[in-house]
Amino acid sequence: MSRAPLVFAAGIFYPGGEHITGWRAPGSEPHAYLDLDYYTRFAQTAEAGRFATLFLADELYVWDRFRSGIDHGVNVRLEPFTLLSALSQVTSRIGLAATVSTTYNEPYHVARKLASLDHISGGRAAWNLVTSASDEEARNFGRDAHLEHGLRYRRGAEFVDVVNGLWDGWEDDAFLFDKQSGYYADRAKLHVLDHRGDHFAVRGPLNIPRPVQGHPPLFQAGASEAGRDLAGRTADAVFTLGGGSLDTAQGIYDDYKRRAVAAGRGADDLKVLPWFSPIIGDTQADAEERFHELAALTPDRVQIDLLSHYLGTDLGERDLDEPFTFEFDLDGFNQSKSGYQSIAALLAQRPYSIRELAWEVLRRRFTLGTPDTLAAHLVERYEKRAADGFILMAPTLPDTLVRFVDDIVPRLTDAGVYPREYAGDTLRENLGLARPAGRYAA
Amino acid sequence: MSRAPLVFAAGIFYPGGEHITGWRAPGSEPHAYLDLDYYTRFAQTAEAGRFATLFLADELYVWDRFRSGIDHGVNVRLEPFTLLSALSQVTSRIGLAATVSTTYNEPYHVARKLASLDHISGGRAAWNLVTSASDEEARNFGRDAHLEHGLRYRRGAEFVDVVNGLWDGWEDDAFLFDKQSGYYADRAKLHVLDHRGDHFAVRGPLNIPRPVQGHPPLFQAGASEAGRDLAGRTADAVFTLGGGSLDTAQGIYDDYKRRAVAAGRGADDLKVLPWFSPIIGDTQADAEERFHELAALTPDRVQIDLLSHYLGTDLGERDLDEPFTFEFDLDGFNQSKSGYQSIAALLAQRPYSIRELAWEVLRRRFTLGTPDTLAAHLVERYEKRAADGFILMAPTLPDTLVRFVDDIVPRLTDAGVYPREYAGDTLRENLGLARPAGRYAA
Ligand SMILES: Cc1cc2nc3c(=O)[nH]c(=O)nc-3n(C[C@H](O)[C@H](O)[C@H](O)COP(=O)(O)O)c2cc1C
Ligand SMILES: Cc1cc2nc3c(=O)[nH]c(=O)nc-3n(C[C@H](O)[C@H](O)[C@H](O)COP(=O)(O)O)c2cc1C
Repeated sequence: MSRAPLVFAAGIFYPGGEHITGWRAPGSEPHAYLDLDYYTRFAQTAEAGRFATLFLADELYVWDRFRSGIDHGVNVRLEPFTLLSALSQVTSRIGLAATVSTTYNEPYHVARKLASLDHISGGRAAWNLVTSASDEEARNFGRDAHLEHGLRYRRGAEFVDVVNGLWDGWEDDAFLFDKQSGYYADRAKLHVLDHRGDHFAVRGPLNIPRPVQGHPPLFQAGASEAGRDLAGRTADAVFTLGGGSLDTAQGIYDDYKRRAVAAGRGADDLKVLPWFSPIIGDTQADAEERFHELAALTPDRVQIDLLSHYLGTDLGERDLDEPFTFEFDLDGFNQSKSGYQSIAALLAQRPYSIRELAWEVLRRRFTLGTPDTLAAHLVERYEKRAADGFILMAPTLPDTLVRFVDDIVPRLTDAGVYPREYAGDTLRENLGLARPAGRYAA
Repeated sequence: MSRAPLVFAAGIFYPGGEHITGWRAPGSEPHAYLDLDYYTRFAQTAEAGRFATLFLADELYVWDRFRSGIDHGVNVRLEPFTLLSALSQVTSRIGLAATVSTTYNEPYHVARKLASLDHISGGRAAWNLVTSASDEEARNFGRDAHLEHGLRYRRGAEFVDVVNGLWDGWEDDAFLFDKQSGYYADRAKLHVLDHRGDHFAVRGPLNIPRPVQGHPPLFQAGASEAGRDLAGRTADAVFTLGGGSLDTAQGIYDDYKRRAVAAGRGADDLKVLPWFSPIIGDTQADAEERFHELAALTPDRVQIDLLSHYLGTDLGERDLDEPFTFEFDLDGFNQSKSGYQSIAALLAQRPYSIRELAWEVLRRRFTLGTPDTLAAHLVERYEKRAADGFILMAPTLPDTLVRFVDDIVPRLTDAGVYPREYAGDTLRENLGLARPAGRYAA
């Protein structure tokens, strides 16, 4: 089988684009962040660009650990399932992927919502499993502190088992709707889950038939050892941090594929989709200038408080311009371990002051270039097997997405790596993934 | 102030209409119960009839306590929030009310979903608080048995407090979106909830602004002492069992109004909306015939198993045709106490066999008549203050709703009790309810 074509997910976390102060950019529309119309334009633009899916990142709290978060950050967002369900009615082909924290949800509710979204969208639902990272989220759900990192991944793994089990409880052809005989369902095709594990006890059955896609695709983004292990065993696609050299990206790509194979799956069963946050200029210098304009919209305080957050330590009282030293303790750190490690890696390369480091962390989120160089970058990463596709996290919205679809997508189709039409009707078809048979199918 | 006009909610529990085997009726469309298009027609028909709101009843399990439930029952449904969010895009005026179990949900998630639905629908969201009733639901959420009745209502009361508190956390004008200064929000207008109660610990703030309606309206349907008490203190509208004599209905109506006043609220702040499930005939005899046709679609076994369910006791092995005696133990009964009591009340009137009783329980759900007599019934109940409106639970769908809008609604407008147009844009406006100020509003 030839390799599946390049795929894109259109990601959105901050409604104004991939930076906490992106809402200040000249073209941004901060008054519209609760209007469905704003997201409709986003979704329809991505659909015009044959994006496989929308991807709604999500967190379960307001970032108020530092006051700059309230003063300057876009701390509001629509809830993913309500937003995607509404968008299912104004789109027809693009996937609808919602982030779900397995730490603060119940598998019965999640299996049901995803099945429901999958049915009403004709097979376009997906989920992005996260385990959450902040104590602030814990405090909105009855706990004082976040679950320990290993424990939350074990809970996440069991969560996936339960959800898949609930989906498979009714076989695909369990329903008869036979008005004549009065039989609505065929009892022989119903399998009660009766799950009793370390983290969940869920009897089932689910009160909705098996999803159109069998199992709506599972995305993941955890990059720690535990996160990669779970992805290798269970995910259909993984979002990786991206950036870095071709070598590094190939290494990450291979690592995920190896884990899938080690788990008895095919290498193609797990798509690797690095983060891609382009700043698109007419020239390289223009792109640099745009980056600096964007950066200038972020108060220094915000950028330093974000660094404090990533490191789990308030740096606000330290000297911001002295060389910065920090005792990293990966084992004891309970937020995102991969984010923490990437900062450790930066500091290992050369000395930084806190202020410099904060800005370097921001800078590294973005890839700067022209439509030509950015398209060439994407083609190379795809062809050299550093990526099966990308999650586009547009730094500013709506403009970056529009420009990406207008100026970069055509270069990719011309290069022969990107489809001119959607391959199918369901998200699985558009990702090049087979529909899983139910565990009880004959 | 003159009395608010009569209002209707268009209810749906079984997708085929208000009986577990309604899917067998000649006009029913059981293949369409997962198609959004089916619900779109439902919603648009109700909107054409100026219904204040859609109302999605809901349970968190499949009724498989008896095998007849799997064989014959419509045990599948779309999840309310995904369905209503999708419907928000194909309707413009009608309310969108989702049932929420406070026993198996987290207030942070619920406050957020309702706020999100309220924002994307322009102020049309509402919730129906239930505490759930069956052990089967408990078993889908990690418990062996359902929470005790009193405990679940105390949890429900605290749940409402937390949700209202989260909604009020951001004042209505907390957001500035000031690109120039870089201030997104006004910190002085954010109030962290920091709730610590017997059942929940929720810090907040919510990651979405205050809903369009301030607080999306709260519906309730608990009819036990604990349920009525909670409704009197907190609900905007209550669904009552309906049926019964004018006297009885007036008694129930007064009881709720008294409870609202005792809680320091106005009598008009709590709408009383009895259940109304009409079988519409061209003549009374025609309506009777339609009822018997509908009843004939229900296998005996189903109706007896339902009675067993309502009583929490398997009657299947008993003699179905002997006079039935039963030791009622209201205190020890942990499902719906009000349903249990209404069966006790029937048996206190005269002897029934199990088979007769099962059918009498079914019969009492419905009101049989012609468009003229049914319209006159509704007008009388409204004018004599036995109802502020009704929840229409159409026994069969789509036909009963269509006929209701075509033949009964015009009689109500002619009688001067029902509006010819929607009063406003939000559900609160259409229910004649004021928008609550935030608790921190100046
Ligand atoms: C592209 C991408 C998107 C992510 N989206 C979310 C998200 O929406 N919500 C969230 O809580 N974490 C998100 N994360 C973080 C990870 O899912 C994960 O929770 C975090 O990296 C901690 O896990 P780790 O310790 O395995 O790295 C995202 C990460 C990446 C790379
Ligand atoms: C019109 C109406 C609609 C109801 N809808 C639901 C529902 O959707 N889900 C549910 O679990 N219970 C529903 N109920 C049941 C009640 O909300 C309540 O949970 C039940 O009566 C048990 O409470 P009680 O013991 O206070 O009566 C409904 C009741 C009525 C009268």
